[in-house]
Amino acid sequence: MTPDEFRRHGHDMVDWIADFLDDTGSGRRVFPEIQPGDVRARLPEHPPSELESFDDVVADLESIIVPGLTQWQHPGFFAWFPSNVSYPSILGELMSAGLGVNAMAWATSPSATELETLMLDWMQELLGLPARFRSTSEHGGGVIQGTASEATLVAMLAARWRVTGGDINADGDTTRLVGYCTSQAHSSIEKGFRIAGIGSERVRLVPHDERFAMQPGALAEMIATDRSAGLLPFFVCTTHGTTSSMAFDPTPAVAEICERERLWLHVDAAMSGIAALELSLRWVNDGLDRADSYTTNPHKWMGINFDCNLFWTADRASLIGALSILPPYLQSAAAEAGAAIDYRDWQIPLGRRFRALKLWFALRTEGVEPVQAMIRDHVAWTQQLADIFGADDRFEVLAPHPLNLLCVALRGDTVESANAATDALIDAANATGEVLFTRTLLDNRSALRISVGARATTHRDVLGAAALLQRLAPAR
Amino acid sequence: MTPDEFRRHGHDMVDWIADFLDDTGSGRRVFPEIQPGDVRARLPEHPPSELESFDDVVADLESIIVPGLTQWQHPGFFAWFPSNVSYPSILGELMSAGLGVNAMAWATSPSATELETLMLDWMQELLGLPARFRSTSEHGGGVIQGTASEATLVAMLAARWRVTGGDINADGDTTRLVGYCTSQAHSSIEKGFRIAGIGSERVRLVPHDERFAMQPGALAEMIATDRSAGLLPFFVCTTHGTTSSMAFDPTPAVAEICERERLWLHVDAAMSGIAALELSLRWVNDGLDRADSYTTNPHKWMGINFDCNLFWTADRASLIGALSILPPYLQSAAAEAGAAIDYRDWQIPLGRRFRALKLWFALRTEGVEPVQAMIRDHVAWTQQLADIFGADDRFEVLAPHPLNLLCVALRGDTVESANAATDALIDAANATGEVLFTRTLLDNRSALRISVGARATTHRDVLGAAALLQRLAPAR
Repeated sequence: MTPDEFRRHGHDMVDWIADFLDDTGSGRRVFPEIQPGDVRARLPEHPPSELESFDDVVADLESIIVPGLTQWQHPGFFAWFPSNVSYPSILGELMSAGLGVNAMAWATSPSATELETLMLDWMQELLGLPARFRSTSEHGGGVIQGTASEATLVAMLAARWRVTGGDINADGDTTRLVGYCTSQAHSSIEKGFRIAGIGSERVRLVPHDERFAMQPGALAEMIATDRSAGLLPFFVCTTHGTTSSMAFDPTPAVAEICERERLWLHVDAAMSGIAALELSLRWVNDGLDRADSYTTNPHKWMGINFDCNLFWTADRASLIGALSILPPYLQSAAAEAGAAIDYRDWQIPLGRRFRALKLWFALRTEGVEPVQAMIRDHVAWTQQLADIFGADDRFEVLAPHPLNLLCVALRGDTVESANAATDALIDAANATGEVLFTRTLLDNRSALRISVGARATTHRDVLGAAALLQRLAPAR
Repeated sequence: MTPDEFRRHGHDMVDWIADFLDDTGSGRRVFPEIQPGDVRARLPEHPPSELESFDDVVADLESIIVPGLTQWQHPGFFAWFPSNVSYPSILGELMSAGLGVNAMAWATSPSATELETLMLDWMQELLGLPARFRSTSEHGGGVIQGTASEATLVAMLAARWRVTGGDINADGDTTRLVGYCTSQAHSSIEKGFRIAGIGSERVRLVPHDERFAMQPGALAEMIATDRSAGLLPFFVCTTHGTTSSMAFDPTPAVAEICERERLWLHVDAAMSGIAALELSLRWVNDGLDRADSYTTNPHKWMGINFDCNLFWTADRASLIGALSILPPYLQSAAAEAGAAIDYRDWQIPLGRRFRALKLWFALRTEGVEPVQAMIRDHVAWTQQLADIFGADDRFEVLAPHPLNLLCVALRGDTVESANAATDALIDAANATGEVLFTRTLLDNRSALRISVGARATTHRDVLGAAALLQRLAPAR
């Protein structure tokens, strides 16, 4: 591809994306009518022996790939969690790809590192996070990770390093370690315990209350029991907005226990933490002032295109202690002087993209006001949905809905029949292609999750989705 | 930003990138004259209270950010390893950002998953990899990871799962595990052992020969010693092209030992494996037919913009066993039927971008011929450099140079004086701003690494770099 061809195809592709995002629902099902293998069957099994034109590729993209995608940007997308993209963030990703730098260390791209640090500090202000997470604080700082799963894992590794005085790096002795969360915590906690060689059996599931929130008294008891069994409690993860039901653990009370017991407190606000951009919802940050680490995802609700996870810690020394390794081929004067941040020591991978551009472009040219307005709308519409389903005696609202997720279920004579009816309703709604809902289990009750978070979703789309569910729900 | 503004700014940005890549060396130092903090000092400490125009952002990009970057695309970039970008891969990244799908599972984006599987199979053919890595084989398959560090880590986790019959996930018992590589292996091996809770002490450094390659006899002895001490050897990593000197471990001989001892053999060809695209260099794959897993990086030499790491295994059941976790909110009919691949179970993170587009765009519109030609050139020029420095008695070539990396040093009366002179030469050359070299240590000898891998580098640039070093080197 010549530079001129790149210009031409690049312009076309920008226009293609503008058209796509301008009308993401147009003529597309949210989830395609497709079976495993259908897409591959339409593509050549072997690499081409002759070069093809870019236009041919775009034609296949339009006829095979896009129709085979789950449409996360569709106005009828109420599944999993939002994965919004905004125009400036797309341009930031494009620029990052064009510059082609590796931001693994300060020396490998100074301005990529420094802009990233600054963006984390800007976001600390915009989210109203504790000052001790700021890079200019004595012990804290932030970093862009790929995903919240990675953020959780590095938090766990930092916690482990601190409780073992760093010995873990050398001896790998995980035999006494034990950590805590509820059954509602994200699967990445348990997966992290497996990866870290601690094991699922050492993740204690603290009982939750009827709001699906951690019971601090039970946590304190479990820690005491583990200590008397000779184990070494080291890590607690509370969630601010669980994936299943958007439950909020009582971090202030948990923080008190963690402080007393000297455990690392990590707060996972991957899905909902961005709500703090809106001042009236800043309660989502309650308790963070005593957390050791915190994570939230601009790549979900905020519209900074995936991947852009933000992770802050108030104890960067433990994080770097756990993850730093300096072979001779990566040494530099800056690294040795300790004057600069080398973000490779804050994460699992070595290499890293220049992801700060996405945030910088978006915060300067669009700011947070459009996001605040969208968040207010989504939260208000979700409350309206709760009223609608609350007034329909076929339905039951299964969990608190403080923000933009509503978990509803059909009633039934038994749990089994209610679950079967709810599952059937989800399937029937999704089969229309107009909407996509996903399912969860809340204390064995099957729940239809309505996640109101797509950027393209309007009030009319939300009311339409409710009407569709009411129409499809069987009479009692 | 309105759709129309997105079109306009998007076109401008495509043109900006075309100009940038068309003349990456123009007026720019490879490494900026900059100190830690310089970039941040020129940017506002707090987020803007008023919105700014996109043109203002681009102006700051040009005046502050780009001049503060290490220029990985510069023709004088001979540092670390290549990180090339090609036009179609940039467009693939752009399209991925615009589509905004999350490819964590088949159900979350069917065509993203299926195109990825196909691209791994295409690359298996183009690299001449064993058929048992193909997704259509009985037990194998491939996946795009972010980085080789992650690929190495998941290989280690799969190996650990297999040797413990899966018990590790539950009990986290790492007490007897031990793995093997040389001191020349990438730092991600040791970092992976730390993350996995096994510890640095359980990474045995197998002695290397004068070519910096693993000594299989020593490996066999170490395994026997560890077994008689009651330990559980489980993992060997050989490297095809070490980062320090591009050494190749003798994988065929190591594979024989691994097969006999039932150890997982992972081959790390992050930097050099792409050479196999060129038929005359296919020897870089020697021994892969008996490896359990393999990784190489199209985001280095091949020009698929970062991140795009390819990881294959011949034992996907162990990989998935180690990494699969299925909470209710991620269940789907496809996942339960086992009919589709859910790539979240092949990696550390949960979420993932639609990275296959980059490969698809590049392989269809440019193919591998331009890459093959570039590889042949880079290898030939590196051999010419070896001749030039071999004929200059001030210099010494410190390691074999089968491909595109040459490690040279200045001679000296003592190791200390030679090292000091070599380090000074690196600093002096880099200070010109015309080139960037990085340093490594090879058995305590300081070495100047000349990595001939940037896409923009011409024969003239290579000869110019050699002449610069000869001019700056002190007379004997």
